Amino acid sequence: MRKLTGRVSKKRGLPPGALVHVGDKKAENAKILVIDYNENNYNICDSEGLAECRSPMEKPSVRWVDIVGIDRVEVVAEAGSVYNLHPLVMEDILNTSQRPKLDDWDGYTFIVLKALHFDEPGGEITAEQVSLVLREDTVISFQEIQGDDFLPIIDRIINNHGRIRKLGADYLLYTIIDSIVDNYFVILERLGDRIESLEDEFLSDPQKDTIHRIHSLKREMIFLRKSVWPLREVISRLERGEGGPFENTTMVYLRDIHDHIVQIIDTVELFRDMLSGILDIYLTSVNNRLNEVMKLLTVITTIFIPISFIAGVYGMNFRFMPETEWRWAYFAVIGLMAAIGLSMFAYFKRKRWI
Amino acid sequence: MRKLTGRVSKKRGLPPGALVHVGDKKAENAKILVIDYNENNYNICDSEGLAECRSPMEKPSVRWVDIVGIDRVEVVAEAGSVYNLHPLVMEDILNTSQRPKLDDWDGYTFIVLKALHFDEPGGEITAEQVSLVLREDTVISFQEIQGDDFLPIIDRIINNHGRIRKLGADYLLYTIIDSIVDNYFVILERLGDRIESLEDEFLSDPQKDTIHRIHSLKREMIFLRKSVWPLREVISRLERGEGGPFENTTMVYLRDIHDHIVQIIDTVELFRDMLSGILDIYLTSVNNRLNEVMKLLTVITTIFIPISFIAGVYGMNFRFMPETEWRWAYFAVIGLMAAIGLSMFAYFKRKRWI
Amino acid sequence: MRKLTGRVSKKRGLPPGALVHVGDKKAENAKILVIDYNENNYNICDSEGLAECRSPMEKPSVRWVDIVGIDRVEVVAEAGSVYNLHPLVMEDILNTSQRPKLDDWDGYTFIVLKALHFDEPGGEITAEQVSLVLREDTVISFQEIQGDDFLPIIDRIINNHGRIRKLGADYLLYTIIDSIVDNYFVILERLGDRIESLEDEFLSDPQKDTIHRIHSLKREMIFLRKSVWPLREVISRLERGEGGPFENTTMVYLRDIHDHIVQIIDTVELFRDMLSGILDIYLTSVNNRLNEVMKLLTVITTIFIPISFIAGVYGMNFRFMPETEWRWAYFAVIGLMAAIGLSMFAYFKRKRWI
Amino acid sequence: MRKLTGRVSKKRGLPPGALVHVGDKKAENAKILVIDYNENNYNICDSEGLAECRSPMEKPSVRWVDIVGIDRVEVVAEAGSVYNLHPLVMEDILNTSQRPKLDDWDGYTFIVLKALHFDEPGGEITAEQVSLVLREDTVISFQEIQGDDFLPIIDRIINNHGRIRKLGADYLLYTIIDSIVDNYFVILERLGDRIESLEDEFLSDPQKDTIHRIHSLKREMIFLRKSVWPLREVISRLERGEGGPFENTTMVYLRDIHDHIVQIIDTVELFRDMLSGILDIYLTSVNNRLNEVMKLLTVITTIFIPISFIAGVYGMNFRFMPETEWRWAYFAVIGLMAAIGLSMFAYFKRKRWI
Amino acid sequence: MRKLTGRVSKKRGLPPGALVHVGDKKAENAKILVIDYNENNYNICDSEGLAECRSPMEKPSVRWVDIVGIDRVEVVAEAGSVYNLHPLVMEDILNTSQRPKLDDWDGYTFIVLKALHFDEPGGEITAEQVSLVLREDTVISFQEIQGDDFLPIIDRIINNHGRIRKLGADYLLYTIIDSIVDNYFVILERLGDRIESLEDEFLSDPQKDTIHRIHSLKREMIFLRKSVWPLREVISRLERGEGGPFENTTMVYLRDIHDHIVQIIDTVELFRDMLSGILDIYLTSVNNRLNEVMKLLTVITTIFIPISFIAGVYGMNFRFMPETEWRWAYFAVIGLMAAIGLSMFAYFKRKRWI
Repeated sequence: MRKLTGRVSKKRGLPPGALVHVGDKKAENAKILVIDYNENNYNICDSEGLAECRSPMEKPSVRWVDIVGIDRVEVVAEAGSVYNLHPLVMEDILNTSQRPKLDDWDGYTFIVLKALHFDEPGGEITAEQVSLVLREDTVISFQEIQGDDFLPIIDRIINNHGRIRKLGADYLLYTIIDSIVDNYFVILERLGDRIESLEDEFLSDPQKDTIHRIHSLKREMIFLRKSVWPLREVISRLERGEGGPFENTTMVYLRDIHDHIVQIIDTVELFRDMLSGILDIYLTSVNNRLNEVMKLLTVITTIFIPISFIAGVYGMNFRFMPETEWRWAYFAVIGLMAAIGLSMFAYFKRKRWI
Repeated sequence: MRKLTGRVSKKRGLPPGALVHVGDKKAENAKILVIDYNENNYNICDSEGLAECRSPMEKPSVRWVDIVGIDRVEVVAEAGSVYNLHPLVMEDILNTSQRPKLDDWDGYTFIVLKALHFDEPGGEITAEQVSLVLREDTVISFQEIQGDDFLPIIDRIINNHGRIRKLGADYLLYTIIDSIVDNYFVILERLGDRIESLEDEFLSDPQKDTIHRIHSLKREMIFLRKSVWPLREVISRLERGEGGPFENTTMVYLRDIHDHIVQIIDTVELFRDMLSGILDIYLTSVNNRLNEVMKLLTVITTIFIPISFIAGVYGMNFRFMPETEWRWAYFAVIGLMAAIGLSMFAYFKRKRWI
Repeated sequence: MRKLTGRVSKKRGLPPGALVHVGDKKAENAKILVIDYNENNYNICDSEGLAECRSPMEKPSVRWVDIVGIDRVEVVAEAGSVYNLHPLVMEDILNTSQRPKLDDWDGYTFIVLKALHFDEPGGEITAEQVSLVLREDTVISFQEIQGDDFLPIIDRIINNHGRIRKLGADYLLYTIIDSIVDNYFVILERLGDRIESLEDEFLSDPQKDTIHRIHSLKREMIFLRKSVWPLREVISRLERGEGGPFENTTMVYLRDIHDHIVQIIDTVELFRDMLSGILDIYLTSVNNRLNEVMKLLTVITTIFIPISFIAGVYGMNFRFMPETEWRWAYFAVIGLMAAIGLSMFAYFKRKRWI
Repeated sequence: MRKLTGRVSKKRGLPPGALVHVGDKKAENAKILVIDYNENNYNICDSEGLAECRSPMEKPSVRWVDIVGIDRVEVVAEAGSVYNLHPLVMEDILNTSQRPKLDDWDGYTFIVLKALHFDEPGGEITAEQVSLVLREDTVISFQEIQGDDFLPIIDRIINNHGRIRKLGADYLLYTIIDSIVDNYFVILERLGDRIESLEDEFLSDPQKDTIHRIHSLKREMIFLRKSVWPLREVISRLERGEGGPFENTTMVYLRDIHDHIVQIIDTVELFRDMLSGILDIYLTSVNNRLNEVMKLLTVITTIFIPISFIAGVYGMNFRFMPETEWRWAYFAVIGLMAAIGLSMFAYFKRKRWI
Repeated sequence: MRKLTGRVSKKRGLPPGALVHVGDKKAENAKILVIDYNENNYNICDSEGLAECRSPMEKPSVRWVDIVGIDRVEVVAEAGSVYNLHPLVMEDILNTSQRPKLDDWDGYTFIVLKALHFDEPGGEITAEQVSLVLREDTVISFQEIQGDDFLPIIDRIINNHGRIRKLGADYLLYTIIDSIVDNYFVILERLGDRIESLEDEFLSDPQKDTIHRIHSLKREMIFLRKSVWPLREVISRLERGEGGPFENTTMVYLRDIHDHIVQIIDTVELFRDMLSGILDIYLTSVNNRLNEVMKLLTVITTIFIPISFIAGVYGMNFRFMPETEWRWAYFAVIGLMAAIGLSMFAYFKRKRWI
């Protein structure tokens, strides 16, 4: 089961800015991808160190440095010194238990996001921390593992698809955030499907493990919430221009992301409401079933106990029991028992217990 | 059962502004209605393409372009290029999982609303997305299906009823929003009736399916809420003048809509409170009934078990059981049993268990 | 049972400002009372039409036009045209499902309030809509039925009691609002008494209908809340001067009303807290009683089942049952049974089940 | 039991500013204490009327007029006319169902507070209304009954203890408020002790009356809350300078009170959380005990019913029951019963039911 | 068990600023540590009085006065007079039931924090109050007991590790706060581990003491919350510059602490959500188990009661019971019983009760 809290404690006592990786080791090797592009050209350099891809394109262009594998502290440290990042930024990049945030530093903007994925076999959501730095014409992205979220972006750059090659680094930043946020919808749809199937199944035949499935969905919701709520703040601050100079063209796209995030938050709230609705029903149906069980018990007991008592009476061994001598007594008693039993039955029938 | 979330995921990886219809196919054909009117004349053009209705009336007039069937992407695209809409606006028009919102674009205002209807047989609320664009003297409305919400408005234009022909495009926009919001009251009244009948029926005879009816009403409420809450924000922003230049005459009408929406929100909250009140009572009455059942069981058992035991004792086959030889023993024992049973009965009667 | 929502739907499709009465027919006839007064004189005109009372007093004076019976649409329409009210105001006056609000129109102020009364036999709160218009020196009030809320005010005007004859129309407006708000305290005290008697009775002997009484009190609370909450906003806006020019002398009285409303809101919240406290106790006591019942059942069953079994054993008809032949066996078995029964009894006694 | 709402309704219909005492008669006689002091001298005048203590000290000094027994309307009226208080202020002083508030009048400041005490035998909190007026160098305090809250202040004035003689009337006002707020801590500590003893006792042995004790503590909490919450607002407004000109020296003391009130509010919230925690546990333990009871019942029933049935079978009086003739049949059946009983017992033992 | 509220009441009646220690006696002796440092040198003086360490270093330097053992009132009083602290500040330092706060005094800043530790054997969180005063180049810290939180800081000063020796007193203040906040993460991780182990264990085998463990974790959470929530406000105010002149270099570190605190608050909220989730499941599983128990009881009773009745019937001693004479009657009855029993069993099997 996924840990609830990062092991931040191993940094206790160290001075602020100390570079320690907090999180699980995930990647085998660091992998660095440097993409330069402008409206006419593009150039991709794929290596394991920053040094090999230093030479920028001559014409004014956008550079995207994508660093995968932040548990290789030395690679992050190198990028930090090349792009002159503050030690606290470095620390935040390495600490994967950050919450999404935007910090506006002198000359550059630092954004932390959570990219969410479904861990297929178990169906758990996993979060990967993505840190973004926007410095003039350069976007630097730090990922924990190699994912496929960024492939369509690279594709669009190579194929000059859409407006990406015509616009600046701020649009690239937007595109990266957008590709991460788009993925949240995929997660939401999956969760929505699971809630709906739970609900359907549930109305027909409530099972004993339902409560655990509700609980696990709630956990996922809490997890999702933890990633998405602070993101709204991040985008709002970008819209208010706190994340440095965005062009107007990009601004309208930010508003679009903002709408998406609000929609995601709405949906998460909707899911939470539905889950508590399902829980209410579940508890009620558990109680109702108990009622059914008790009714059956009571009906059976109430019908048979009195007539068993009568049988008991005539099973007594007293010498003088006049009725036992009568010829039709046995049949009379059997008839009496049947009458009692049937009238009880009718009574419960009328009360709709059976 | 209605889906909780739109299938936004099929847009994953596409650049922003890509035109993909998200939602169910609903309409057979696109249908376009262009109405030009001023204080003196009006002209209606009904076709399947925009091109055929291009020629505006000579005198300054208001034009209303009503496009039905947004799953015909090419028709929306044509309208977008004719009226010069931003690709993100086009995308939002086509994506029927939008939440209500107002975007203020350069030169035009874009509003997304949800028109709600009762899906008669099942009694579920269905939402249809209505997108509105206000550009100078033109209002463009995009609907998913042909509904009858707009007929009274067309009627008023044709018959020069009310003030609509005397006022501008902003009043037309208001009229359209108003006709949609008015319909919410119809929905509310239906839900109110269902809650009240649930409550009445419920106090007299709580049924086992009550919990499911409560649950389904709660779902409808959540659905309604999702459509109405953001609308308040939309109207507030229009009132604050963020949706472009509204005339003062129209402004007071906006305030009226605002009041309506607040009233709707109040009522939805009221309904929620009532539903949870009903749920509380339901749970309590389930518990109370369990108590009744258990009391009956206990009374029957407690009366008969001791006297059955006595019968059991005298049913033992010991050779030396002096009492069994006595002449009136049988009747004495019967009397004893009756005494025990009756005193138990009296005890429970006094404790008001029966 | 009182309807939760007004039948606003009958206005669907009509243009805004259409004059349709929404609500129950309550009054037989419209009744109009026009009171002119200044520091020295007063003049009362009581009729069924506005026209007959037109002539104002010569000296600068305050005029109060009190119109009872708003289901007579033509009377309201006449007042509207005499005092030049906007069609939307007229619509709001006629629509008795309005929530309390203040609208500041050009030249006059429009206020909607709810006057609350106890419907005596059933003990339900009923709300009557009171609309107030303040235009210069004139206050126009619209009531649904003839109540006695305004009698003390008329009395004070006639008898020149208090400051009312010395101050202007704004003070008259305040006085009317104050008389309505004062009545809320009467409602609150009644509800408070009912809650307290519920609580007292309840701690001594919880009844089965308690839950319904709690539910009905909660309904009243929701109803009260719906009338009072928006009123706070109305008064706040008056205090901020949004309702036109109030004199400083009247201002301090508005602050007084504001304090009253906040106190009412506090008390309603307090009542809600107490009701949920009572509900908690009720549910717990239901559970506790179930426990008592089950304990009794278990004690009886547990004591008698084992000894009944022993009786059953010696009731078997085997030929060779050596014990049955022994002389004191019967008494020994009876003794054994008594020992088992008594030790069980002692066990439960020690466990405090009985 | 203390009333939830004051009997404000007896003022219904009266003009605003009418002097009617709302509350219980508490004091026998009005008692007036006038203390004049400056850095060098002090003078105390103790009487039953204001007139006798009119002569102020010659040198610039602070005057504190303490009026006890506000149900003596005439005394309050006299003070009101001497110090020129607005009729609404007089009304508020007499109405003991006020909530804490600060009103800034022309030339003076009016503050309403609640002094809380423990009513010893029953352990209920009682509230006494204290009204304070600060007018230039004079503080007038109105109390319902003679309490001992103000004794330490008088003591400090007489003995020139602390800074009180050196500072002005605003510091005196602060000191009075502070002495009332300090008393809240005493109340809190008592409630805290009761909650803790409830909790301790509770974890060891939950009793049936626990729910009533929780309920009564909750009531006290609601009561406390009603007195303290509005007080925060009062102090905040004093700090913002809305209560007239406070000297900087006194300002820092106000901040201190503010901190105290926030701490009290925190603690009340903490207590509420703890009480609902205790309630949760209580309900769970009630359920758990029901489970225990039911398990015992089930174990006993399940062990004895099958073997009783066997005994029943061999108690039948058929002529041809071959087993009954066998020599060891009786012992075999007894053995069979023991085997069944013991295996059942073992089964429940393994399932940890016993 | 830790007390919920400090014994503030012993200060009742004393004038504000009276120096009384509120809290448990914790330290044996007061211990004073004075550290002077600048970029080049440092000097440490360790004694039991302030006087012995008076001489500052000549060059402009930072001085840190660390006073341990605030129950020694005289030592605090001495520091107060040396550094000219306001009596209210002194009072707050001594009153260990303060909530975290920041007060901006003339010339110095006063901060109260809570340092949290795990009390190892019982696993309870204990809070120690740390008061900080920043006056120009001096930081004075007051602790209740000698902890090891500050050792790494002293270490860094001695070894000139990190930036601490290069920056001013504001950075020292930050470092102290940071070391306290860092410790909260340790607490959080421990609590997280306990919640997770509770959850794991719980899903497999819910125990009866689970409810108490949930309760105790909730208590810890409330405790944590009480310490952390106000701290956010403290840091926010420092960031807004209310705590005096902080250098820009230190400002970015404050933002870092702010992020940490927000993360802690998020996590506490997450834990609360999880705990209530666990409680929900627990209650449901208790109910489910009751259901299981009742089902077993019902199955056993329902199978055996009818066939025991049959046995009872044929145990009656009537003279004329024709069936008893038939040869195969006994076996027929046994067969009938088996048939009834098995069909009941099959019925319950199909209903999945067993």
